[in-house]
Amino acid sequence: MAQEHPDHPVHARIDGTIVMIGFGSIGKGTWPLIERHFDYDADRFVVIEPDERNHTFLRQHRINHVADRLTPTNYREVLGRLLEPGKGFVVNLSVDTSSLDILRFCREIGVPYIDTVVEPWAGYYFDTQDNAARTNYALRQAVRDEKAANPGGTTAVSCCGANPGMVSWFVKEALLTLARDTGRDAAAPTDRAGWARLMQSLGVKGVHIAERDTQVRRRPRPRGTFVNTWSVEGFIAEGFQPAELGWGTHETWFPENGHRHDTGCRSAIWLERPGAITRVHTWCPTPGPQFGFLVTHNEAISIADYYTVGEAGAPEFRPTCHYAYHPCDDAVLSLHEMFGSGRQQTVHEILDVDEIVEGIDELGVLLYGHEKNALWFGSRLSNEATKDLAPYQNATGLQVTSAVLAGMVWALENPGAGIVETDEMDHARCLEVQRPYLGPVEAHYTDWTPLQDRWEHFPEDIDDSDPWQFRNVLAT
Amino acid sequence: MAQEHPDHPVHARIDGTIVMIGFGSIGKGTWPLIERHFDYDADRFVVIEPDERNHTFLRQHRINHVADRLTPTNYREVLGRLLEPGKGFVVNLSVDTSSLDILRFCREIGVPYIDTVVEPWAGYYFDTQDNAARTNYALRQAVRDEKAANPGGTTAVSCCGANPGMVSWFVKEALLTLARDTGRDAAAPTDRAGWARLMQSLGVKGVHIAERDTQVRRRPRPRGTFVNTWSVEGFIAEGFQPAELGWGTHETWFPENGHRHDTGCRSAIWLERPGAITRVHTWCPTPGPQFGFLVTHNEAISIADYYTVGEAGAPEFRPTCHYAYHPCDDAVLSLHEMFGSGRQQTVHEILDVDEIVEGIDELGVLLYGHEKNALWFGSRLSNEATKDLAPYQNATGLQVTSAVLAGMVWALENPGAGIVETDEMDHARCLEVQRPYLGPVEAHYTDWTPLQDRWEHFPEDIDDSDPWQFRNVLAT
Ligand SMILES: NC(=O)c1ccc[n+]([C@@H]2O[C@H](COP(=O)([O-])OP(=O)(O)OC[C@H]3O[C@@H](n4cnc5c(N)ncnc54)[C@H](O)[C@@H]3O)[C@@H](O)[C@H]2O)c1
Ligand SMILES: NC(=O)c1ccc[n+]([C@@H]2O[C@H](COP(=O)([O-])OP(=O)(O)OC[C@H]3O[C@@H](n4cnc5c(N)ncnc54)[C@H](O)[C@@H]3O)[C@@H](O)[C@H]2O)c1
Repeated sequence: MAQEHPDHPVHARIDGTIVMIGFGSIGKGTWPLIERHFDYDADRFVVIEPDERNHTFLRQHRINHVADRLTPTNYREVLGRLLEPGKGFVVNLSVDTSSLDILRFCREIGVPYIDTVVEPWAGYYFDTQDNAARTNYALRQAVRDEKAANPGGTTAVSCCGANPGMVSWFVKEALLTLARDTGRDAAAPTDRAGWARLMQSLGVKGVHIAERDTQVRRRPRPRGTFVNTWSVEGFIAEGFQPAELGWGTHETWFPENGHRHDTGCRSAIWLERPGAITRVHTWCPTPGPQFGFLVTHNEAISIADYYTVGEAGAPEFRPTCHYAYHPCDDAVLSLHEMFGSGRQQTVHEILDVDEIVEGIDELGVLLYGHEKNALWFGSRLSNEATKDLAPYQNATGLQVTSAVLAGMVWALENPGAGIVETDEMDHARCLEVQRPYLGPVEAHYTDWTPLQDRWEHFPEDIDDSDPWQFRNVLAT
Repeated sequence: MAQEHPDHPVHARIDGTIVMIGFGSIGKGTWPLIERHFDYDADRFVVIEPDERNHTFLRQHRINHVADRLTPTNYREVLGRLLEPGKGFVVNLSVDTSSLDILRFCREIGVPYIDTVVEPWAGYYFDTQDNAARTNYALRQAVRDEKAANPGGTTAVSCCGANPGMVSWFVKEALLTLARDTGRDAAAPTDRAGWARLMQSLGVKGVHIAERDTQVRRRPRPRGTFVNTWSVEGFIAEGFQPAELGWGTHETWFPENGHRHDTGCRSAIWLERPGAITRVHTWCPTPGPQFGFLVTHNEAISIADYYTVGEAGAPEFRPTCHYAYHPCDDAVLSLHEMFGSGRQQTVHEILDVDEIVEGIDELGVLLYGHEKNALWFGSRLSNEATKDLAPYQNATGLQVTSAVLAGMVWALENPGAGIVETDEMDHARCLEVQRPYLGPVEAHYTDWTPLQDRWEHFPEDIDDSDPWQFRNVLAT
């Protein structure tokens, strides 16, 4: 058993091989947390990393690695070679690999699995002209269908990063906070139906995943370079997917360019427009009101689904839910350049923890429309604090990697839970594991609504009678 | 006579008092050029500057100044006290003063006048709910009506900065360049009608005032601060005016939120939308294709008017013309913050020549739709070069102040020309004076059109049959 540091509890023992797929910004930051919090044989930790630029670090830290690029034709062979049935763990932190195929294989051989996004094989995001097929709705529904067809079995945790991931646990904490603060019974429900009824009874109309990243470095962004605080490939891919949102029962208006789905959980709609150029009015504690980008995200669909009361096709209650993301300023400029030039930048940079001179990643959930108007609940983790908490990552990274850690702990504690999303996990246990890495986790009420601070002088297509209509949230 | 430096010709003698109104970024940069290029009595140079923050510099440089804030009730008294009839010069480089009232008074007493914008008294930009009344069209038309009612007389140069101003001279240089490069007669026309017919015969459909400012400093933009390379007040005011553009005869589509004018020159339309949030597809040499903001500007209206062939109300030919401005990156972020929060920042900063670590102001005219597709002609002045050319200003400032210098020289050489816009001045003489301050002045042809590099995957409201329709230029 590893020597236990008082602040660094060892949560579980992992026998067999831990296979980490991808060693980009998230993989590199997850590794030290796995090292710290699990008891395992270092010889049996293997990284699959096709990008040579990441090999020097792996070599210098004597981490076993193979350079294979997983493809639809080789993944079973490559993973099968590394894994022993019924043991170990597959931690998928890559882009361009199919989460569904890999989790299916892991479950076949009884190996627990976790990822942070439902990722498709390379090409998916840009190779089709059918926008409905390019949605996260379609990606997620395939995983939900797999779950329905194959209930139970080896645990595979889908979409357990910061968002999707941690924010689903925040929604539950926020609901309990709101119940307590409005004098209601604040006992945690014990099943999905109970949580959905709690949200409905509190009068919540919807949820923004409201994020403001203020991390900056001194070097001005070079032209032609996309700068972000996490995967640029990942952000560009999702930014060019259609905007998507969970579509709530309180909405009286429907966007002209909106599309519903005919099959599946029906909880979401998509817009005929890239998410990263679609702006919404939102709110975070540091800036107050701000623009966010309505980038499609798995949690927008899963949360709207999880909190549905009644039939999927004709629900009694469902919240609106979507991402409202203000990335770091350099990423805002990168988007402006990318859409303005009509070309993706070929040079990509992720702000390094050591070059960031100030800033926080403020990531939370804004529950709105209830009797206290709106409640933001989230993590306000600074890059400075991150340096003291864990190596090789900035604040954005640590919010993700610590969620992966929590998800792994939960999976090991619940080995036969089948395919689960973070909404379906024990949020209290997960946050217990993760919270030491989140900096200040705070609840903030605000009286801001999207009807405040509009442009004077110009007509806007708004509904004055109901501040929290999506019509008002969507920027003109 | 002042001692003449070989590179700094003294262009004229000014007797009487030179009154400079406003000593902000442009006033402070114009002063050394006046000092250098005119012979005058330093005792008779007076600045009107109400803002105490600018007084230290004025005192340290022993520049006469008064602290009056000009208002509709005091301007005649304050100016009358300082000026002698028939002598001197009024150089208006302020915000919140009425260009029309002041130029009218100057002409009454026979004092030459120049400004860089048709500025209204304080309150104009935000106090009315009538958007048509808040347009630059209305402001300019009032000056044109004054000219029509009072032809000739003392010269008053309206809107002689970089843009409006210098860019009108660039349009003429660009037309002559295009005529030469397409094997046509490249002799300069001698009157307005000749210039308009030249543009028509060259097949030019329209003109972007295409600017990219790449000036940056190392300090990341502080939240809540509007950062720009010239007047923040000026930029915010024009940014919240409705977007406006000269409306060409080749346009087959009309914007849904567009409005025509019933009176005046009829050359322009306005959109029910703030210019600084209205994006267009444009092109500059350094970035290639980029987004610009369709901020209203006097030159969009004056150029469309000047190059009209035929009746104002039913022209045979008129170019489309508008600003397509990519301000410095910090200003892009400032706009994003301002519109996102619905509030104007109260802290304003103008990037100082000495803190700027790199970048240029690339300001030109993009003549499009002709047989060589598109020609950008303009100044690509770097901040580094600016330091060697003149003190107390960045590259953006020097493009403006050197146009003021040129306009003053022309006014002194043409004392009885009445009210004129820069389109109506001798562009060759003006550029002769200004060009030493503009860095590289270059012509660039491009095969780019607004139909290139659109988003794949999403339908856009475009006209494939005619690349240069405004419908294609306007970003979705
Ligand atoms: N849920 C969340 O909160 C969250 C947050 C950030 C990132 N993510 C996701 O995590 C993933 C990793 O993010 P990142 O910032 O580390 O990205 P990154 O771009 O830094 O790294 C991606 C890694 O995947 C590897 N890879 C690419 N193709 C591969 C293939 N065919 N087989 C194996 N490996 C391959 C790359 O070599 C690279 O190491 C992305 O899918 C991203 O969307 C989720
Ligand atoms: N045509 C162009 O290319 C161009 C370019 C830049 C600026 N401009 C215009 O030039 C003007 C000055 O720009 P700037 O960057 O120096 O602006 P600035 O904000 O730096 O300075 C404006 C000055 O006006 C003074 N002022 C304000 N109210 C006044 C009043 N009532 N009476 C007298 N003075 C008053 C202020 O004290 C300040 O000194 C603005 O109108 C701007 O729009 C034109």
